[in-house]
Amino acid sequence: MDGAAAPLLPPLAVSMGDPAGIGPEVIAKAWEVRDDAALPPFVAVGDPRAVARIWSGPVAEVRDLAAAVGAFGTALPVLPVEDAGDIVPGAPDPEGARCALNALELAVGLARSGAARALVTGPVSKAQLYAVGFIHPGQTEFIAERCGVARDNAVMMLAGPGLRVVPLTVHVALADVPRLLTRELIVGKGRVTARGLQRLFGIERPRLAVAGLNPHAGEDGALGREEIDTIAPAIAELVAEGIDAHGPFAADTLFHARAREGYDAVLCPYHDQALVPLKTLHFDDGVNVTLGLPIVRTSPDHGTAFGIAGRDRADPASTIAAIRMADTMASLREAA
Amino acid sequence: MDGAAAPLLPPLAVSMGDPAGIGPEVIAKAWEVRDDAALPPFVAVGDPRAVARIWSGPVAEVRDLAAAVGAFGTALPVLPVEDAGDIVPGAPDPEGARCALNALELAVGLARSGAARALVTGPVSKAQLYAVGFIHPGQTEFIAERCGVARDNAVMMLAGPGLRVVPLTVHVALADVPRLLTRELIVGKGRVTARGLQRLFGIERPRLAVAGLNPHAGEDGALGREEIDTIAPAIAELVAEGIDAHGPFAADTLFHARAREGYDAVLCPYHDQALVPLKTLHFDDGVNVTLGLPIVRTSPDHGTAFGIAGRDRADPASTIAAIRMADTMASLREAA
Repeated sequence: MDGAAAPLLPPLAVSMGDPAGIGPEVIAKAWEVRDDAALPPFVAVGDPRAVARIWSGPVAEVRDLAAAVGAFGTALPVLPVEDAGDIVPGAPDPEGARCALNALELAVGLARSGAARALVTGPVSKAQLYAVGFIHPGQTEFIAERCGVARDNAVMMLAGPGLRVVPLTVHVALADVPRLLTRELIVGKGRVTARGLQRLFGIERPRLAVAGLNPHAGEDGALGREEIDTIAPAIAELVAEGIDAHGPFAADTLFHARAREGYDAVLCPYHDQALVPLKTLHFDDGVNVTLGLPIVRTSPDHGTAFGIAGRDRADPASTIAAIRMADTMASLREAA
Repeated sequence: MDGAAAPLLPPLAVSMGDPAGIGPEVIAKAWEVRDDAALPPFVAVGDPRAVARIWSGPVAEVRDLAAAVGAFGTALPVLPVEDAGDIVPGAPDPEGARCALNALELAVGLARSGAARALVTGPVSKAQLYAVGFIHPGQTEFIAERCGVARDNAVMMLAGPGLRVVPLTVHVALADVPRLLTRELIVGKGRVTARGLQRLFGIERPRLAVAGLNPHAGEDGALGREEIDTIAPAIAELVAEGIDAHGPFAADTLFHARAREGYDAVLCPYHDQALVPLKTLHFDDGVNVTLGLPIVRTSPDHGTAFGIAGRDRADPASTIAAIRMADTMASLREAA
């Protein structure tokens, strides 16, 4: 350091999610441990009353992001959106859902414009959002559209300190997975994953493991042919593009400690194959990362948890991990 | 203790599995640590040359099980079966497969007659067994037949220190799972599991968790109806029989440390849903237990590992755990 003051970086934008869920609480708790957790300045985006309702710490309503950085040391900065009506923790309503959507929209815009370094999204209720006319399957697809990115190119990765997984199919019935698991899907998500690990995680040559669909990865066709007909050709195509992809591997022996040393991420044919090991290992500190966007976006790996909202029982570990991971990813992009 | 000598218990019978696999090595290594691991007397059943080929420790060929108990303190007792021909570690052949089958048959007979307290089976190669005319899907079905038990009543449970799982379907293609997962299957395996946990694990009122088939356990039918149409009715039927069964639960949040405190075993609709968390947590010390048999039977939770056979690289932890678990289960039965 040469003694000159470093230029102030913009803050991260953290959308509050549903005001009746645990979003406001985990954001406030993350702010409380900002020094010990070495968190960068961030601004909560949402209705400040949702925080005040469940937390007695200092809140600073701010009108711009420079003010948020200035306030961050002594109060939780909140950039307000139009108010959420009556907020009752644990009792979501349409006004709250509209507020969550407004907060998301504002936070995405801040990240897209560069006013915020990165986006962290709090948990929303899809059922509540659908009821107020939300037309996207989830927040990720909304963000992709606002960023001008095709939905299929926005890839969900779940990451913990010891494991990163990409579910190739997500919220679909298990019976539909074999039909939906195409070579194009695997290649497309494999490409985005490899590029994302390079650009946002600083891994020069990412090693991708691909799990089989069937038990024991199909045992040479005896327990299903998807590995032979679909997965192996997709891996070959990724390899032909210069991506370090391997598999298909039997899923059951792919996630223990020694096996995890052999790859940087696993592509998994279906939701539970990816989420079961991730949440078994990292239930409290897993982070949901969206790859393939022009902005950095993470979120905690849990839902609104209406059942415990307002009771001071929510664990902020995943939100803290999401903020820290977004900071690291943004720093890598800024240095590039 | 009143000073009288306790009657000598019979030994456990440990079949060697394929002589060209790692079975002989892990059994010999388990014997080496018999004192530190507090293992009960056991006798290896198989070709003594398979042990001598890869291990320089003391072997005692015995002709009966009383002699095995006497020898156990100073040598690995081996009850020989007809010899396995040329044994080359890592290179299985039909003579070896016949030897593995003979060893299994003898060991089952010893356990069935009471001459051995319990059965622990070493790993075999199914492909090799099929090539010599073996007509059962695996060792478990062979054992069930020899015990006069219907195949469906022999239930595979995988158990580690922190988790027990029962896959409801096992070695079938994932696409076939929704069709094979019937109410009768769940109820039948649930019954055998509850009874087995009572009788062999000493759990007075076993708590069974049942995982959903679909992501988030189907989200009230939005992601598949098997939970509503099949799994929930099966759970209700188990509860009506007095069994403490709960679910269906979303699989991804069912296996972290706090969740595991809520049940004694999980019934999982398919192989990887059960085996992924089990092997993620207990790759080295998981044990395969067969419930529903008139004998106690366990096995290490790994295969023949021909690729590392004869190189002194095999880890005996799972075999040690299998022997210790069989001992505990046998003791519970003996005390009943």
